Amino acid sequence: MLEPGDERAGRWLRDSGPVELVRRLTAPDGSAGELPGMTAARLGGYRLRAAAAEPERDLAAVAALGGRFICPGDREWPSQLDDLGDARPVGLWVRGRPDLRLWALRSVAVVGARACTPYGAHMAASLGAGLAERGWVVVSGAAFGVDGAAHRGALSAGGATMAVLACGVDVAYPRGHAELIARMVEQGLVIGELPPSGHPTRSRFILRNRVIAALTRGTVVVEAEYRSGSLVTARSAQRLGRYTMGVPGPATSGLSAGVHELLRGEGVLVTDASEVAELVGDIGDLAPVGRGPVLPRDLLDAVTARVLDALPYHGTVDVRDVARAAGASADEALGRLYELHSLGFVEREGDGWRLTKAPACNGDARRGGT
Amino acid sequence: MLEPGDERAGRWLRDSGPVELVRRLTAPDGSAGELPGMTAARLGGYRLRAAAAEPERDLAAVAALGGRFICPGDREWPSQLDDLGDARPVGLWVRGRPDLRLWALRSVAVVGARACTPYGAHMAASLGAGLAERGWVVVSGAAFGVDGAAHRGALSAGGATMAVLACGVDVAYPRGHAELIARMVEQGLVIGELPPSGHPTRSRFILRNRVIAALTRGTVVVEAEYRSGSLVTARSAQRLGRYTMGVPGPATSGLSAGVHELLRGEGVLVTDASEVAELVGDIGDLAPVGRGPVLPRDLLDAVTARVLDALPYHGTVDVRDVARAAGASADEALGRLYELHSLGFVEREGDGWRLTKAPACNGDARRGGT
Repeated sequence: MLEPGDERAGRWLRDSGPVELVRRLTAPDGSAGELPGMTAARLGGYRLRAAAAEPERDLAAVAALGGRFICPGDREWPSQLDDLGDARPVGLWVRGRPDLRLWALRSVAVVGARACTPYGAHMAASLGAGLAERGWVVVSGAAFGVDGAAHRGALSAGGATMAVLACGVDVAYPRGHAELIARMVEQGLVIGELPPSGHPTRSRFILRNRVIAALTRGTVVVEAEYRSGSLVTARSAQRLGRYTMGVPGPATSGLSAGVHELLRGEGVLVTDASEVAELVGDIGDLAPVGRGPVLPRDLLDAVTARVLDALPYHGTVDVRDVARAAGASADEALGRLYELHSLGFVEREGDGWRLTKAPACNGDARRGGT
Repeated sequence: MLEPGDERAGRWLRDSGPVELVRRLTAPDGSAGELPGMTAARLGGYRLRAAAAEPERDLAAVAALGGRFICPGDREWPSQLDDLGDARPVGLWVRGRPDLRLWALRSVAVVGARACTPYGAHMAASLGAGLAERGWVVVSGAAFGVDGAAHRGALSAGGATMAVLACGVDVAYPRGHAELIARMVEQGLVIGELPPSGHPTRSRFILRNRVIAALTRGTVVVEAEYRSGSLVTARSAQRLGRYTMGVPGPATSGLSAGVHELLRGEGVLVTDASEVAELVGDIGDLAPVGRGPVLPRDLLDAVTARVLDALPYHGTVDVRDVARAAGASADEALGRLYELHSLGFVEREGDGWRLTKAPACNGDARRGGT
C-alpha cells in the first residue's frame, strides 16, 4: 500500500510504527491526526491506496504459491537492507526454499544492459557460473540480457541465484523469462517489494535497484550505456559502502561506455569471477575460510543439520549425494548448503561441497565450533 | 660507449664527469685509479668498449644525416630525463628539425603490443590523431602494431610525433617501418641513446622504455599482454610520477589482460584522446590555456618569431598558410608551431592554429607576455 522507496512514508513508519500508520491512513476523514510533511492532497493519495489495500488477500495469495512475506524484525529479514534508512522496504515477498537472510550474507549482484552484446552475455554467464562455483549467491533483476545470463550462469553451475523483481513475485516479467523465474523459485529465491499481482513501472525498476545494491556484498556491472539503470544500482551500492565493480569492454562500444565511466570513478575493474570473489570476500566476511562457523551447530534446524551430517569428514561430495543422505530434494539440499556456507560450516569446491577446514585452535567445525 | 641505463656507469659519470671518466677508461692499464664498485673483470669490459669507441666518427655520421648529439647541460636537453637519476641517458642522438626540449614539454606516450588486434590499432591511431589535434606531441617506439598506429595517427592529423628508438637513429628498425621513420625525421623527431649504426637488443628495447616514460607527461598503454614491454614503460612512468593510463578492451582478450592488470592498480582508464588530454593537461602544465606564454617573445629565434608573426590576431590558420607567410617549409612551420604551443604562444584547434587567448591582466600574448 506504500510505493517502494517512499522515504516520507518510511519516516512515518519509523515514527509511528506500522499499526498506528495504517490506523491513521484508514481512519475516517479528519480523525487521522498529524503526519509530518503531509498536505490534504497528499494524504488523499495515501488514503486511497490504503483503502484499496487488501493485505489478507495478498498474504493468502503468496501463501497459496508457497511463498511468504517477511518484514524487519523477522528472523529471515536481511538486516543489511536497514542501511537504506527510510527507503528501506516495508517488507519483502519471497518465493523459494532458502533462507533469505543467510543467502544474502554471501551474495553478489551481477547487473547490466538488457540489450547486451554477445560479449556481455558471455561475461555475465561466466561471472554467474564462476561466482556460484565459489559459493557466492548470484543476485540480479531477471531482466533480458545481462541479468538473465548471470542467473542462468549460476544455475548452469548448479549454484545459487536470487532474482529481485520490480513486480509481484507471482508475476513473470519479462514474460519471456517465465521459465527462468519458475526455475529460480524451485532452485533459488525470487523476491520483491510489491504485493502479488503488482506490475512493474519505470520508477519501480529504478527503485528495485536499491534493494539489489543493499542486499549484496557488491555489484558488478557487465555492460551499461551512459545513464543506464545498472549504473543506478552501482552508484547506490557505492553510497551504501558496498563494492562496485565493472567489466571492461572495447572503448568503441557504447554498451561499455557507462561501465568505463564507472571505472574512471570509484569502480574496480574486474575481468573474471576470481577477481570479484577476491574483492568481496576480502574483508568483513562473516565466516572467512579457516575461521570456522559463526553459529553453534545445535541452533541449526533439523533439515539443515541433516544436510550438514551428510558431508564426509574428508573430501568433497556432490549435491545429489548430500540430498540422498539427508532425505531431501536436490534443490532443498542446495539451498541448505549455501546457508551452511554463509554460516561457515561448509565450502564449495568446484562442483562439490566439503566441510570448512577450521584451524586446529578453534576445534573441529563439524563438532560445533564457537 | 656505455650501455643505456647502466646505473653504475651513471654514478661514475656523475662523480667524475665525462672527461675524467673517459680518461680513466682509456688510460694505460693500472693507471686508471679507483672507480667505486669496479673489479678487474668489469673494468676490462668497460675498457674494451672505450677503446672501440669512435665518438668523432659517430658525431660525423649523425651530422652527415643532418642530425645532432645533445647531452645534459645543452639548451635542447629535456631536463625531465634527469628524473632517471643515474639511469639518465648519457646523451641523445637526434634527427629532425624541432627542438626536443620544447616538444617533450607537451608530449604523451602511446605504446602497446606489436601484434595488436585491429581494435588496438584503431584505438592507437585515433588516440594519436586526437592528441595531435589537441596540440600534444605523440611519442612512441616506432615498433609494429600500436606504436606505428599511434605515430601514423598523429601524422595523419598533420600533427607532431616523435620516435624513441632502441638502436642508432640512422638504423631503420623494424625494416618495414623505414618509410614511417623517414617521415618522422622529416616532419617530427627521431631520437635514441645508441650511437649511429647501433643495433637493438632485447635489453635495449626494455631500457629504451624508461626514456619514453621519463620524456613524456604520461603514458597510455593500448593493448598489452601480461609481462609485456609496454607495461615496463607504464610502471616506469608510474615510478617517475607521470600519468599512467590504459585503454580497456574485452576481458576475454589476452592482449588486454596486461592493460587491465594496470587498470586494477594505479592506472587510469581512458577511452579517447579528450580523456587523456584532460588528465595530462590537468596540472603542472607549463603554459595552460589562458595564462599566456612563459618565455619573452624577444628570446624566440628568427624562424620561430616569423612563424608566430604569421598567425592572425583572430581566428585560426592552416599550417601551409603559416609556412608560406613565414617563408618556411610546412614541416618546419609545424615543428615551430608545436614549440610555440609548449611555450604558451599558440594553440591547436582542430586542423588549424591560433594565438593563445591570454587573459587581459597578462597583456597580449602576441606582444610579448610575461
